[in-house]
Amino acid sequence: MRRHRARSVLYLACPIVALTSPLLAQDARPRPFAEILGTAADTDWRTVDPENTLYLELPGGRVVIELAPDFAPRHVQNIRQLVRALRFDGGAIGRSQDNYVVQWSAVVDSMGGPTPGQGVGALPAEFEVASGALPFTPVPDGDVYAPEAGFTLGFPVGRDPATGTTWLAHCYGVVGVARGNDPGSGNGSALYVVIGHSPRHLDRNLTMVGRVVSGMEVLSILPRGSGNLGFYEDPRDRVPIRSIRVGTDVLPNEREDLRVLRTDTPLFREVIESRRHRSEDFFVHSVDRIELCNVPIPVR
Amino acid sequence: MRRHRARSVLYLACPIVALTSPLLAQDARPRPFAEILGTAADTDWRTVDPENTLYLELPGGRVVIELAPDFAPRHVQNIRQLVRALRFDGGAIGRSQDNYVVQWSAVVDSMGGPTPGQGVGALPAEFEVASGALPFTPVPDGDVYAPEAGFTLGFPVGRDPATGTTWLAHCYGVVGVARGNDPGSGNGSALYVVIGHSPRHLDRNLTMVGRVVSGMEVLSILPRGSGNLGFYEDPRDRVPIRSIRVGTDVLPNEREDLRVLRTDTPLFREVIESRRHRSEDFFVHSVDRIELCNVPIPVR
Repeated sequence: MRRHRARSVLYLACPIVALTSPLLAQDARPRPFAEILGTAADTDWRTVDPENTLYLELPGGRVVIELAPDFAPRHVQNIRQLVRALRFDGGAIGRSQDNYVVQWSAVVDSMGGPTPGQGVGALPAEFEVASGALPFTPVPDGDVYAPEAGFTLGFPVGRDPATGTTWLAHCYGVVGVARGNDPGSGNGSALYVVIGHSPRHLDRNLTMVGRVVSGMEVLSILPRGSGNLGFYEDPRDRVPIRSIRVGTDVLPNEREDLRVLRTDTPLFREVIESRRHRSEDFFVHSVDRIELCNVPIPVR
Repeated sequence: MRRHRARSVLYLACPIVALTSPLLAQDARPRPFAEILGTAADTDWRTVDPENTLYLELPGGRVVIELAPDFAPRHVQNIRQLVRALRFDGGAIGRSQDNYVVQWSAVVDSMGGPTPGQGVGALPAEFEVASGALPFTPVPDGDVYAPEAGFTLGFPVGRDPATGTTWLAHCYGVVGVARGNDPGSGNGSALYVVIGHSPRHLDRNLTMVGRVVSGMEVLSILPRGSGNLGFYEDPRDRVPIRSIRVGTDVLPNEREDLRVLRTDTPLFREVIESRRHRSEDFFVHSVDRIELCNVPIPVR
């Protein structure tokens, strides 16, 4: 790897590389990822608040989503209310578009659900929030889509210092609110998750409400729909939702004991560095750079 | 969208933005993607050479791969020979790792296949090629992983002017040669395809041999393996390969009549622009940028 170092410096052309970690400046390779995780202290992990957790029960298994109320407070609150009104139970996954998204709906959703009945209200968009004093761990190699990219409160984000705003990025596994052409036409009764190469051009065009922290493969392997945008043409192909529950409402012994690695620690910065500078024997060429959505957020 | 234009200019910090298309300078929005494709002339499309096509027949359906002999001539030649010796028939997909790759093998592969028997030789790595006079259509917004990114001969590539080399990029659907830690330990008897967010850190660490042009969803929905790196722990979970054939060896009436959009035309440049500047009613915020692996290469 070392023989490529001089070469790779030649194209560090973006000003943001000035943020490159001291680890590189000292020419010390970070420890491998697995070794870093192995030495993580209890304080490097956080427990997900059950009130910010959704348990999505599908025929193929359980999916756990961490909600992000700091990024979309009104939508998250509304989703909790819809879930507690059992609106999703008996709903369905109606869309699976390859290299894009899987989407599911309450029995009656804001997009027009599978069963006729009472509709629910729409909410104003929550596309971005004020950066203010939000913690921010930068990814130091620039970003095609955002002036700054990194992690805030455990989620991948883009930021713009010019506008002072932060937004959840459309990385693999991130969950958003489906809507129609009217930006205020969503309310959380129809949700989608990114299952392919991150469609970052959607950033700031949709309200993002969380991230799958367990069971992603239950969603990502669903057969793709043959209709336009991956919708299932035959209603019988839809995947029924057995139930969705807020974690608080799940019996404690039926909850997952999930810990998510904090993203505001020196250890997480070391994780980023270890993924930038691959020291495993397999790597011939360490690109010494990393893109936001390729940084893992470990869950145990 | 227009109200965001001035703001977005603030972070065009990478020198490569000087390549921004004249379309933007004239402040004219490109036509929507669907409209551009609708007006594509026959000469905007190319037929895939049957000799550079693999038909992979699985229980779930057919996958068609376009081989890229210009990027890995010896591996592509070896793959054709292995296919013609029927080495893959009766082989299996043995790995499906979420947000990463699906991998399949000949009956006996260079990694140690599912059935004991005669091994086949290894080949020197073909990680990059001389850029020379290769055509190149740039993606104008920079790239986290490569000094230049764009399209060459119908494939997404990274390039380095300093070394004068070009390499296939690990975008969704691109196919590579699995190997052990020795960079020369692969030979094409074990292949993988990217099924998640593009793992571009693998660029120049593996020999890339092509791209799936049809049937990607047959691979991407395979159940994930529960073993390390997504390998199936129980051999019975492996997905059997019915056959792999070179297109030339498939009866003409059983071939797919696939056309791939050329990437060296003014029309393809317009496709890139239309995906940078989204003009569809759905978009509130057009980011006016695009990343390599989010540019579609249409196939009909």
